[in-house]
Amino acid sequence: VDCIVMDCDGVLWQGDTLLPGVRESIQLLREMGKRLVFVTNNSNKSRRQYVHKFEKLGIFVEKEEVFSAAFAAAAYLKTQKFAKKAMVIGGQGIVDELNEMYLEVDPGVFNAVQCTEMDWEELDIDPDCGAVIVGQDTSFTYAKLAYASLAIQRGAVFVATNPDAGDAIGPGLMPGAGAIVAAVEKASGVSPEIYAGKPSAFLLELLKGNRVDMARTLVVGDRLDTDIAFGRAGGAGATVLTLSGVCGLEDVDAAMEEGGDIPNHIVQSLPHMLGL
Amino acid sequence: VDCIVMDCDGVLWQGDTLLPGVRESIQLLREMGKRLVFVTNNSNKSRRQYVHKFEKLGIFVEKEEVFSAAFAAAAYLKTQKFAKKAMVIGGQGIVDELNEMYLEVDPGVFNAVQCTEMDWEELDIDPDCGAVIVGQDTSFTYAKLAYASLAIQRGAVFVATNPDAGDAIGPGLMPGAGAIVAAVEKASGVSPEIYAGKPSAFLLELLKGNRVDMARTLVVGDRLDTDIAFGRAGGAGATVLTLSGVCGLEDVDAAMEEGGDIPNHIVQSLPHMLGL
Repeated sequence: VDCIVMDCDGVLWQGDTLLPGVRESIQLLREMGKRLVFVTNNSNKSRRQYVHKFEKLGIFVEKEEVFSAAFAAAAYLKTQKFAKKAMVIGGQGIVDELNEMYLEVDPGVFNAVQCTEMDWEELDIDPDCGAVIVGQDTSFTYAKLAYASLAIQRGAVFVATNPDAGDAIGPGLMPGAGAIVAAVEKASGVSPEIYAGKPSAFLLELLKGNRVDMARTLVVGDRLDTDIAFGRAGGAGATVLTLSGVCGLEDVDAAMEEGGDIPNHIVQSLPHMLGL
Repeated sequence: VDCIVMDCDGVLWQGDTLLPGVRESIQLLREMGKRLVFVTNNSNKSRRQYVHKFEKLGIFVEKEEVFSAAFAAAAYLKTQKFAKKAMVIGGQGIVDELNEMYLEVDPGVFNAVQCTEMDWEELDIDPDCGAVIVGQDTSFTYAKLAYASLAIQRGAVFVATNPDAGDAIGPGLMPGAGAIVAAVEKASGVSPEIYAGKPSAFLLELLKGNRVDMARTLVVGDRLDTDIAFGRAGGAGATVLTLSGVCGLEDVDAAMEEGGDIPNHIVQSLPHMLGL
């Protein structure tokens, strides 16, 4: 194994808290000469914002080592030679990644909350709006839903960052990109052309384009349906589930019964994988 | 036929514009001694608000003649002997109907738009919140989604007003209750316990409880999947599709091929049905 593809939330940290032994684990992997690739379905942050987050937690990574769903969504439009404007339902990270690729952003109805019937009848879609990117958006509103739905009904490409229904945070499952994608999908009657994040084939292509040889890669993550499924779909050398995040052993049991994706190895946490 | 069950939007009016000949049609039906029942899946308005809307358009109806999805949702909780608070994602009409039945409303996060990770971790669900009613909400926000999802994860009953994806208004399909229900469903991992509006069995029971004998009733509507399906499920004496709203002849053709619900009669509009 030359390369470790690692999920972030649930493997390295939870929210803003680094999990124990993670700094040492990354240090050890670097000393072993492994190439590290951080792949996250969190769609709020750009790669640059991730580099800062790592730095604040005392870990130094390069922007080129990070593949976030925000980056993947923007990269998808770029590879399609997209030349119009993209409306974003999601975090600033998506906007930043679009800007970095010199793709134009359609502000849509960024500050409106409401969209009454009268607003709807007068809704003015920028004719240059050719795509709608939908991720988790903690400031999602009906007005954004209306604008996005109309743009898609008029032919804009519908790009979803990831299908995750929610993240297990504090009191329960906090609504994720999947919930917002479901609203846009139902309203417009159109399914996303692509889910850019894990476990999409596009993200595998993106890694391949960045010289990641999946056969010589270990994929580490805390979710069966995204991380482990991604590793298996890509023909990873091996997959490792950490029990430090969303999935537990009962989920592995359920996946075995239902014929879902199962990891090659299961460990308590990243440091355990390395015998730390 | 003693009774006419009529849809409103697309049959009587479009938005705030009365369709031609509708006033005369209702007048004629009254003169013929028919009982009129107005059943609408629009979940924004209470029955009282409907009476006013009719009045403004020059038509006089009784509150008891109106069955809106907002009323049906509140009535559902009432028949379940619900005694806690209900959080509402939807129009004021739902709140009004709850109040009229002396059911308490949980204001939730009525004025918040955003719900960051920190807000989420501190989210304080009223322990008395025992139900979440979800309809179309032109002021829907992520904060409401988060509150509703957490309440449902903690066991609150999930009541949907209706499954309509959207209404054909002006520039396209304006997002309907179905889109918002889809977001809450995905985020919470729970499906609605009931869709209170057409074509639900509950609404049929509600009409039956109000002495509507469906076998002696004509159901008139502009949608196959709600109006005509409702009439057929209830064993209506006959069903009539008006082409003055959402569905066209091509939809009837498609339904015939796919084995969907087909009306007994098809007319251009309500006055055409009466030879006006």
